[in-house]
Amino acid sequence: MHKQYLMAPGPTPVPEAARLAMARQLIHHRGDGFREVMAKVRADLKWLFETDAEVLMLTSSGTGAFQAAITNFSSQGDTLVAIGGGKFGARWGDIGRAFSMNVVDVEVPWGEAVSPATLRDVLQQNPDTAMVTLTASETSTGVYHPVEELAKVVREHSEALFAVDGITAVGVHEMPMDRWELDILVSGSQKAFGIPPGLGFVAASERAWKVAEKSDHPRYYFDLRREQQRQKDDQTAFTPAISVVLAAREVLQMMRDEGREALLERHRINAEATRAGMAAMGLQLLASCPANSVTAARVPEQLSAPEVVRRMRQEHGITIAGGQAHLRESLIRIGHIGFFEASDIRMVLGALEAVLQELGLDIEVGAGMAAAQEVFLRR
Amino acid sequence: MHKQYLMAPGPTPVPEAARLAMARQLIHHRGDGFREVMAKVRADLKWLFETDAEVLMLTSSGTGAFQAAITNFSSQGDTLVAIGGGKFGARWGDIGRAFSMNVVDVEVPWGEAVSPATLRDVLQQNPDTAMVTLTASETSTGVYHPVEELAKVVREHSEALFAVDGITAVGVHEMPMDRWELDILVSGSQKAFGIPPGLGFVAASERAWKVAEKSDHPRYYFDLRREQQRQKDDQTAFTPAISVVLAAREVLQMMRDEGREALLERHRINAEATRAGMAAMGLQLLASCPANSVTAARVPEQLSAPEVVRRMRQEHGITIAGGQAHLRESLIRIGHIGFFEASDIRMVLGALEAVLQELGLDIEVGAGMAAAQEVFLRR
Repeated sequence: MHKQYLMAPGPTPVPEAARLAMARQLIHHRGDGFREVMAKVRADLKWLFETDAEVLMLTSSGTGAFQAAITNFSSQGDTLVAIGGGKFGARWGDIGRAFSMNVVDVEVPWGEAVSPATLRDVLQQNPDTAMVTLTASETSTGVYHPVEELAKVVREHSEALFAVDGITAVGVHEMPMDRWELDILVSGSQKAFGIPPGLGFVAASERAWKVAEKSDHPRYYFDLRREQQRQKDDQTAFTPAISVVLAAREVLQMMRDEGREALLERHRINAEATRAGMAAMGLQLLASCPANSVTAARVPEQLSAPEVVRRMRQEHGITIAGGQAHLRESLIRIGHIGFFEASDIRMVLGALEAVLQELGLDIEVGAGMAAAQEVFLRR
Repeated sequence: MHKQYLMAPGPTPVPEAARLAMARQLIHHRGDGFREVMAKVRADLKWLFETDAEVLMLTSSGTGAFQAAITNFSSQGDTLVAIGGGKFGARWGDIGRAFSMNVVDVEVPWGEAVSPATLRDVLQQNPDTAMVTLTASETSTGVYHPVEELAKVVREHSEALFAVDGITAVGVHEMPMDRWELDILVSGSQKAFGIPPGLGFVAASERAWKVAEKSDHPRYYFDLRREQQRQKDDQTAFTPAISVVLAAREVLQMMRDEGREALLERHRINAEATRAGMAAMGLQLLASCPANSVTAARVPEQLSAPEVVRRMRQEHGITIAGGQAHLRESLIRIGHIGFFEASDIRMVLGALEAVLQELGLDIEVGAGMAAAQEVFLRR
């Protein structure tokens, strides 16, 4: 039995302070103690999202937060432009269809980022677009889309709301909600926050709240008007995932102690080092415009990606991820989102080299770790 | 600072084994380790619900599970007969209205149980009823409704599905889903399970699944067809609240070790002792047909219930609950659902006597604890 390491795109390892917070006896969610926690978490979330809007907490996975974003800030029959390019981008469109929207899927090849020009063309062809959705950092491909530029295109060429899935982008990439005028920004607990799954986050601009007044989607559990009203009072509409909120308090304090710039810079360097290391081992990186949350690379044709993933876990105790959908056999994905540092990156690259050597790949010994080390030492 | 005790109707105290399970480093929800957990939890949930149906786990509060029950097993415009009598019974109707159903509210005075004859009359007046909803143990009043008899009435006088909220009944009262032919049985993690909030449970009969095929409610996150398919394979459709599932494994094993009869008997005795103790202190019990999950009693007119609740917490570290809605000023509620034993009941009654004495109530010293003790010693 090896020591166990989580280096998948999420859930990510939970810092000890957060785990110990969850090990304490529960507190009641209607008492003053929990109100204090809510007040602190609310303030820290606004800091992280760089917004004056309320960052609402929902007891759900990130997909629940997607659904909340769509069903509160649009109406049935509205046109939803869903930017694709991966599994999570496509999910926005699937939810829109489930809620009787007119969905325009913007096809983007997996591994590529959508170009602002493409989005502009789509908006010009669909002048009545009510909402544009984007998964900023696409976990299935490791692509980062140019959020700031896309936000400008939405503003200039439509009246649509721009809804951004920041599940693996908030706390990783710069994502200043108010400054970039993002209308809706979604995130989830088990990624950069490094806390267990169970909380989804949704923040919305004043423009979006105006649209919410007219929304006709049926909703109850994910009715954000009620949540907004209750959470401004440091309460929640329904019983919250108390333990996960207590864990959130711990990690948000860690983030504030580290500072937002340092937090993003750490992710940037870890990502760059991972890419350099994987490239030096002869793997072909998938993303033309890489995200700093997860690095996806094709294994050489003679190898099976699931076999690499299996050996990483069995022989080194390290959980990385394989590919999704049509890339299942060919892709491996390393997550470096959350509380990781250089030691973690060296560890995963070293183990990966050992596995690839074992599988017969001819790699210069130590090349991957050396390439990563150059990135770390360049600082 | 006192030691802290949770004796509200929920969340309930989390056993140490479950808290320590949550303090361990996370495991990945797509790995074999989590599959094993899912297999064990699925089997134990079926045992607890006394059903061959799949007991689906949702990452949500109990209200999310209500919504899943309604939106999967009925259609827009269908008639929903919502049995009232408290805050949670009424919520079924609110959700039905939010999803464009024709809701018939069965008004029941708070503190009373609905009679089978009343339900029969309502069903005869509404022959096209598609679903009847009931909150078996109404947490806001401490009433237990006669579930078995009501299930028979639904079967005999309609074609409707019978959906039961067992959030504070499963693991407390006998609730054999298959034997009583309940079509839908819902529960939640933070009550009898004694684990943190974050998981809702929904099981459905074959009759209900037939109805689901024709359901036209829009849904995505709470699409139970997809969950059923995934969970039968020991997976979940979306990222689950992993920590809470790990905690569930621990408490379900504790329940199995205790045995179902012993578990229910312990709840029955704790409830009877609590009622005897409160009555012996001169408090008027609210429920004509009391639940074994929570005991609600009116405080004498000269006292304020919120003041009693406040003093219980401040002077004894014990969190009990006040009343809800129009009973806010007059009701106190003690939760004895979950992993409680005689010592806990003696403790809460002793502290309550001290508070009531302090507030000027003339109570025979020790009368409440003595009355409870008689129940415990009678075993």
